[in-house]
Parts: sequence; structure tokens; C-alpha cells
Amino acid sequence: MEAKLNQALPDHVGLNGAGDRVRILDQSRLPGREIYLELSRLEELKEAIAALRVRGAPAIGIYAGYALYVLARQLGDETGEERLARLEDWGAQLNSTRPTAVNLSWAVRRMLDTAQSAAHLPRAEFLQRLLEECTAIHREDAEMCRAIAQYGFSLVKDGDGVLTHCNAGPLATSQYGTALGPILLGQERGIRLRVFADETRPLLQGARLTAWELHRAGVDVTLICDNMAGMVMKNGWVQACFVGCDRVAANGDTANKIGTSSVAVLAKHYGVPFYVLGPTSTIDLSCPDGDHIPIEERSGEELRTQWYKEPMAPEGIKFFNPAFDVTDHSLITAIVTERGICRPPFRESIGKLFLSGADHDD
Amino acid sequence: MEAKLNQALPDHVGLNGAGDRVRILDQSRLPGREIYLELSRLEELKEAIAALRVRGAPAIGIYAGYALYVLARQLGDETGEERLARLEDWGAQLNSTRPTAVNLSWAVRRMLDTAQSAAHLPRAEFLQRLLEECTAIHREDAEMCRAIAQYGFSLVKDGDGVLTHCNAGPLATSQYGTALGPILLGQERGIRLRVFADETRPLLQGARLTAWELHRAGVDVTLICDNMAGMVMKNGWVQACFVGCDRVAANGDTANKIGTSSVAVLAKHYGVPFYVLGPTSTIDLSCPDGDHIPIEERSGEELRTQWYKEPMAPEGIKFFNPAFDVTDHSLITAIVTERGICRPPFRESIGKLFLSGADHDD
Repeated sequence: MEAKLNQALPDHVGLNGAGDRVRILDQSRLPGREIYLELSRLEELKEAIAALRVRGAPAIGIYAGYALYVLARQLGDETGEERLARLEDWGAQLNSTRPTAVNLSWAVRRMLDTAQSAAHLPRAEFLQRLLEECTAIHREDAEMCRAIAQYGFSLVKDGDGVLTHCNAGPLATSQYGTALGPILLGQERGIRLRVFADETRPLLQGARLTAWELHRAGVDVTLICDNMAGMVMKNGWVQACFVGCDRVAANGDTANKIGTSSVAVLAKHYGVPFYVLGPTSTIDLSCPDGDHIPIEERSGEELRTQWYKEPMAPEGIKFFNPAFDVTDHSLITAIVTERGICRPPFRESIGKLFLSGADHDD
Repeated sequence: MEAKLNQALPDHVGLNGAGDRVRILDQSRLPGREIYLELSRLEELKEAIAALRVRGAPAIGIYAGYALYVLARQLGDETGEERLARLEDWGAQLNSTRPTAVNLSWAVRRMLDTAQSAAHLPRAEFLQRLLEECTAIHREDAEMCRAIAQYGFSLVKDGDGVLTHCNAGPLATSQYGTALGPILLGQERGIRLRVFADETRPLLQGARLTAWELHRAGVDVTLICDNMAGMVMKNGWVQACFVGCDRVAANGDTANKIGTSSVAVLAKHYGVPFYVLGPTSTIDLSCPDGDHIPIEERSGEELRTQWYKEPMAPEGIKFFNPAFDVTDHSLITAIVTERGICRPPFRESIGKLFLSGADHDD
């Protein structure tokens, strides 16, 4: 599979030159500053996830792979059992930083499985196996994103308007992204899409990240507040909604950034197709439906003080600040994966993805 | 009609002690600072509307009345015709600051009609008539709000959750407000409602104003981002949506703060009644439907830089920043006015309001 890089966008997660630290673009400082961080201590590796310096479910998975490799390098002459115990502890601590995204625990599991099979090897070989595994997670993500972009691209045509929520672009993955993949692929091929990006309160991933990377890639992007998406649809300006996903249940219910489910309700009301784009690693077959997806709640200070010169809400009131919501499968037109496009009934079409290894589009 | 004042909330628009300036609480500085301004020059009187130091359709109407009175005091020995010409010019300039709210032009028209009928009188009497008129606009608004609150109160019961968008409370009117009236009336009567307030991007009227005045009145208020309203409804936490209105067309289509129509779509989807509350002065019978309501667009800088320590979106992208949207009448459960509650079909029920002077509730 061709994995053409979109060179306009930076490589935002990987290892530093010496290979002993994780190097990330600090997304919490965008769009104003492009600051790269090199991290190696467990506490700072966890903090970078919790503080959203690295975010987006696939990117967190890639990051967690590198993080465990970097931590493993800090091991000395431990026995195989001791190595495993340490890695399992680190993996559990990384997992605990964000409960909703399935890619994080998925990547940790891959690294731990590799560690287990290599635990008996000499230190250098043990580390080499872990390095190969985290590099593979990264490379496979890039290939998946490219495949998702190609499938998603078949759903739009030149001149279409596309609405997106939060950030499911290259910064959230390795390259292309998921929801933004078809748009960036179109850009490469001279097929122009007009994008409306929800700013995505409270953390403004749409304003800070999506608008930044689409503009940098030369895409026609218009920023709106989340509460303007309905008017944009009513005006007939968008022909599709493309969003990413943090976890997809077996019945197609999809957890994604808070507000996604409202976009889906609006899209249904205004007759706009609503597409979820994500790798199959985001699909959690052990999760029967959206009611079983834990939803992370974050501090009310994100609403009251974050980004602001002075507090924008009075002290003493209550806040409700869920980081995600669940979009009911009945609101989703299709789920676009690297193995093909799933349409309702999702329990069936998602099941097929996992039964056959082959690509399909039903 | 009893017009009991809610003493917890300040008198935020009126005349200064000398009666030669308009005195307002600068709402653009809330919730951090309570700063009162005294204004008398045309340019500063216009700027206060444009910069949202005074906002909310009824409050702008009250303010415009006082503003024209204060400006009229600056007239010298002009003839009646000259007086009228000056006032008409000032009224047109005030009108031009915000095109959507009908109360502004309605209040200006009342003041100009009074001016016309009094133009031949000596200066002191002429001014006295104008003072009486703007005071009447203010007093009538207080009475209307109280009546709206009483009708709206009949739609909820103790312990209900209510979702509101933007600010249609005392700060947007004279007292009680429109959408918040039933809640404040309930508070006085020991009937507790739990309020979820949309923060209302980009100008954060929900966070800065609604949360501030409800909290100050002792109401249980939870602040959410606009994109969380759907999840709050899905969770079954609200039994009604109460919103204000800036202009209601003859068929019930309602212009209100951007995002209102999305709340209405969500409410319909989740089976939550959606109520519009406003005085009959907000109903524009000359406007057949929502397509005929002009929608003010504001600067993209409100999305990119306003309130922030540093820009939250990159330079060079496009913005779409409408201040209002139109909620289709098919999404509205009822329109609550000081003369009674209108239910569909609205063309009929609204028509009845204006045919009979009497209160009714159909």
C-alpha cells in the first residue's frame, strides 16, 4: 500500500534522535506556538496525555507505544518477570490517564504482548523487539489512515462542503488523519472540498488544530462555533459530516468528542449524511453498545478559566464537562474504516469486517 | 398588576441621578467586574449597543428610549420640525446598530411618535412627554416580564430541570427577564428548578450573564458548553427548554441567539418541550416568516481572539459568525407572551393575541 506523506504537515509524534525520549509537538500550545517536547519520565509521559499535549485516539496509541519503549530502556538487569511487572505497571498507569479511547489500551496491550514474548531475551534484543512493535503501530496507523482516506474520498465530490467536529486530522493520528483524510487526499488530487470546522468547546481542537492543519495544507476552511453547525446545514452549505471516533461499540454506537452526537442529530434533521471515520482498532467488539462506554468528565475550570484573560463564569456555580458523548448508531449513515465502509445494520457489517481479513465495501 | 422586584439583581438600565445621562451596568465586563457607565453622546450611546454593553432585545428597547430622551435634552431652541428631524436621525442611527431585534426599532418608533405629538410644545413640556414615554416603556416591560413569568411558570413543576440558551434574564430586560422569569418566580415561591445554562459562544452570555444572575438569585445553575445540551437532554435531566426571542414572525418562526435553533432540533429529537418566551412587542406581524428576518453577522475576531490570552485560531482562515438564527415554528412547543400562551398553529394563535386585548391561554 502506498503511504504518500503529506509533507505540509509536521511529524508530530515519534522518538528523538538518540531514541531515548518520546518527541511530540505540544498540541496544547497550538496554533500560537509550535513547541516540541522530549519526554522520558513516567510522570511527564502521563502528564502529556492528561494535559492533551498529545491527543486524538490513534495518536495517543502511537504515543503510548513509544512511551513504553522509552520506559523499557530505563530498565537495568531485571529478570524477565521483573521487566514484565514493571511494564505492566507503566501500561496501567498510562491507560488510566484517559478512560474513553480504546486505542490507548489497545497499544499498551500490543506492547505488553510483545514484551511477554520477548521477556526471556537479552536486554538489547528485548528492547529491539519493543522498538519494532511501537514503530509498527506507527507505520500501520499511517497505512490505515491512507486507506480510510481513500474509502472516505469515494463519498464526496468536487465542490462539496464538509462539516467536521473536533480534530481527527494528522495531529490526531500519524498522517492524513481519519475524518480529515478524504479532504487532504482530495487536496492532493485537485478535488477541492470546502470545510466548516466546529471550534469544539471547551478545548477548541477545531479552532486550534483542525483549522491550523487544514489551512496549512491549503484547504478552504471556515471556522464556526459549535452552535452554528445547524445554521450551516440549514443553509445547504454542507453535503456531508465527517467525524472521527474514540470508541465504536459492536452495534455501531460511537463515542467521540462531546458535541458529536448533536451534530449527528442536526445532520439527520437537515438530511445531511453523517459519517464516522476511524481504524478498526477503534471498534470494541467486547462493548455491546454505547451505554457500556465510560465517559470521561473533566474539570469545570476548562469552561470557566481555560484560555481566558479572566474568568468567564462566576465562582460557586456547578459545571458539567463531559469530554465525550455517544452518537446512537441510528444517526450514523456509515462507518468508514481501513477495511471498508460499514452501513446499517452495523452489528452485521461490523461483524463482517472482523470475520474476513479482506477489504470490502457493502 | 403586582410588579414585585427581585432585589437580588441590580437595576441595570435607567437614568442617572441628574436625569441627563443613561446609566447602564456594562454587561461586557461581567462576571468579573460590575462597572456602571453614564452615557450621553450619540457615538457612545451607539457604541454601547454595538459592543453589547447593553444587550437583550427588550433591554435595548428600554435603553433606546432613555437614549433618545437624553439626546433630546441636548436640543436647544430648535423648531418642532427641527426637533423631529434630529430625533429621527438619532433614532435611525440607533436602529442601525443591531438589525435583528425588533424591540429597538419599536422603542425608537414609540419615542418618535411621542415626539411628533409633542413637537409643538415648549421645550420643558416636550422633554417631559419624552421622559414619560421612556419611563413607560421601562415600566411596561417590567409588567410584561412579570406576566410572562407567571404564564411560563404554569409549564413547569417543582424539581424540573430547565435548559436555557444565551441570556434572557433580568439583564436582558428590566426585571425577571423572559426565559428566566418562570425560574426566578419559582425561586420566590419556593418552587425549585434546576437550570442548565448553555455558555453561548462566542460571546458567552450564558456563562457570563445567565449563570451570574441565576447564581446571585440563589438558583441551582449548572453551566455547560453549547455542544453538551444534547447529552443533558439524552440523560433526561431537563423537562423543558426556555429561550428568549429577538423577533417572532407572524407564522411563529423565531429569531434568537445563534444556536437556539439547534437546541430546538435537539429538544424535538429527545422529546423535550421547547418554549419561546417574549413580550408581544417582539412579534413582528409585518414579517411573514423567518426568511424575512435579517440576520446580523459579526466579526470573526469574536471567535479568534475575544476574551483570550492569545489567538485561538490561525490567521488567514475564514469565519462565519452569525449573531442569530431562526428556529422554525415546527420546532416550537409554545410561545409564551404577557398576554398568554400561543400554541400551534401559530399564525392563528398569534393573530388572536392581537385581535383581543384580553389575556388568554389556548
